Amino acid sequence: MAPHRLVVSVPEEQYAAVLRELPGVDAVVWDLADDHPRGEELRLVVPPYQSRVELAKRLGRLDRLQVVQLLTAGYDDVLGDVPDGVALCNAAGVHDASTAELAVALALASIRRLPEFVQAQDEGLWLRPPVGPALADSRVLVVGYGQIGQAVARRLAPFEVTVTAVASRRREGDDLVDVVHGIDELPTLVPEADVLILVVPLSDDTRGLVDADLLALLPDGAVVVNVARGPVVDTDALVAACAGGRIRAAVDVTDPEPLPPDHPLWRTPGVLLSPHVGGATRAMAPRAGALLRRQVEALRDGRPLRNVVVQAEGLSPAR
Amino acid sequence: MAPHRLVVSVPEEQYAAVLRELPGVDAVVWDLADDHPRGEELRLVVPPYQSRVELAKRLGRLDRLQVVQLLTAGYDDVLGDVPDGVALCNAAGVHDASTAELAVALALASIRRLPEFVQAQDEGLWLRPPVGPALADSRVLVVGYGQIGQAVARRLAPFEVTVTAVASRRREGDDLVDVVHGIDELPTLVPEADVLILVVPLSDDTRGLVDADLLALLPDGAVVVNVARGPVVDTDALVAACAGGRIRAAVDVTDPEPLPPDHPLWRTPGVLLSPHVGGATRAMAPRAGALLRRQVEALRDGRPLRNVVVQAEGLSPAR
Repeated sequence: MAPHRLVVSVPEEQYAAVLRELPGVDAVVWDLADDHPRGEELRLVVPPYQSRVELAKRLGRLDRLQVVQLLTAGYDDVLGDVPDGVALCNAAGVHDASTAELAVALALASIRRLPEFVQAQDEGLWLRPPVGPALADSRVLVVGYGQIGQAVARRLAPFEVTVTAVASRRREGDDLVDVVHGIDELPTLVPEADVLILVVPLSDDTRGLVDADLLALLPDGAVVVNVARGPVVDTDALVAACAGGRIRAAVDVTDPEPLPPDHPLWRTPGVLLSPHVGGATRAMAPRAGALLRRQVEALRDGRPLRNVVVQAEGLSPAR
Repeated sequence: MAPHRLVVSVPEEQYAAVLRELPGVDAVVWDLADDHPRGEELRLVVPPYQSRVELAKRLGRLDRLQVVQLLTAGYDDVLGDVPDGVALCNAAGVHDASTAELAVALALASIRRLPEFVQAQDEGLWLRPPVGPALADSRVLVVGYGQIGQAVARRLAPFEVTVTAVASRRREGDDLVDVVHGIDELPTLVPEADVLILVVPLSDDTRGLVDADLLALLPDGAVVVNVARGPVVDTDALVAACAGGRIRAAVDVTDPEPLPPDHPLWRTPGVLLSPHVGGATRAMAPRAGALLRRQVEALRDGRPLRNVVVQAEGLSPAR
């Protein structure tokens, strides 16, 4: 091996194939299940998507490691596992399309009562439900207005709804909303929300954000959609609010996760659960491949990395 | 009663309340279940939404009847029931938002496997399905490009998809598609369709349009969404194509309808069924009320009616 080649690991052959097209780059496939024979050469590691590997143990043995590039947008669960002096990059942007469309899918399915029709289908039962709600004419509050929040708002725009956006701080709007409200305004916004879509990162500020008090502010018949992280919602409070039939929920993430088989959330009326599949679609691979290619080229050429969530010394400053 | 007042019937008090605001108009509530005491005065009748009344029998006794105004967009099932010389108007436009959002809801739910998650939820089972399809990057063929077809295309546009539109005749495109293809081009378009959305009216040209031959042209894994009319699809062919797992379907309309409890479509793998609820939402009432108001004003003032699907003599020409 030439001494100045950049050696990187990826969890799947499809990504290695993309990176091997780059001059000066050696891409090896590594799932982090065991130590890697070329571990001492690795400068960038891409851990497997959403797998629970012993990240800290493996990464601690990689002397030349400079960058951990995740395939997820969320990184709260690996912050403690990345060695000092190593940059951590997330995959912001890679899952926008897939996660935003799931948020809309969950909202639409819940509002249009698709879970009830699935259950009736098992019994061959042609339900004639009373005239029900529509997404049309409803007021949607998107909490978390980064790239995925914007992707959600963009998809909702043609549905004849009113979209209101909330981010950590109040700021000017964009082509989709007149203004982005600050999260401190939630108590005055939630009473006007027929649909509450959560797309915030999990942090000390957002843990337990949607608690019993906030849920109580929602109008009757409102739907809570969570494609953020389970702990953003107080699960016990959500179960209590839905069990009475006052509100509904459609969530791709739970707390705890995976949800144990005997957890009451499974069978709470008006709750639709998907098993954290927001980003797990075939829309991921082409977008992840493009990100990995850009990041590895940047590292090879000494240019700034994108999506840096933890800085490291000795690398070009992130943009 | 003043001799020149316009007497109209509507099936629900909420519409009567809207029309009573109009000078010169008497609006009575009539469900057509029995003869109406003021039947001989009625000049416009709005039959109940989607109900199976003896329309021909009731309408035949109304000597002054000029207009039957439906609350549905489809009118195939009442064509034989409207007396000669009476205009028939449909409710095109009233259900666009509700039906188009259901088409998108069905497509998204099927593609993102929500029915499987609903079934797993009953068992408290946290599925970890393999990386599945997304709506993003898929090629969507919208067959039927009237107002509802356009409303579907408009809602799909931000989902990072390619939308192709088909109507009865090839014509120029709009802000959503470059060209509207003719229905004779279907055999060359269907092999490129990951999602086939049916929004055509039922007619001699569209009955059985989606038969075994056309289904065989769909690529593996494609999804057929029907929010048009059940007989547009050959149900036996659809069951056969889905049962093998080659394609999927999500349909709001069936043939026969309602679907009998023992019909095989209920339990065909990969089929999601909703019980003809495309337009049956709370988005309907405000839009239907606005249409009825415009139509009754036009009839009162001798101006042209909208949405005329069968002309009658003696009325202002339709626009």
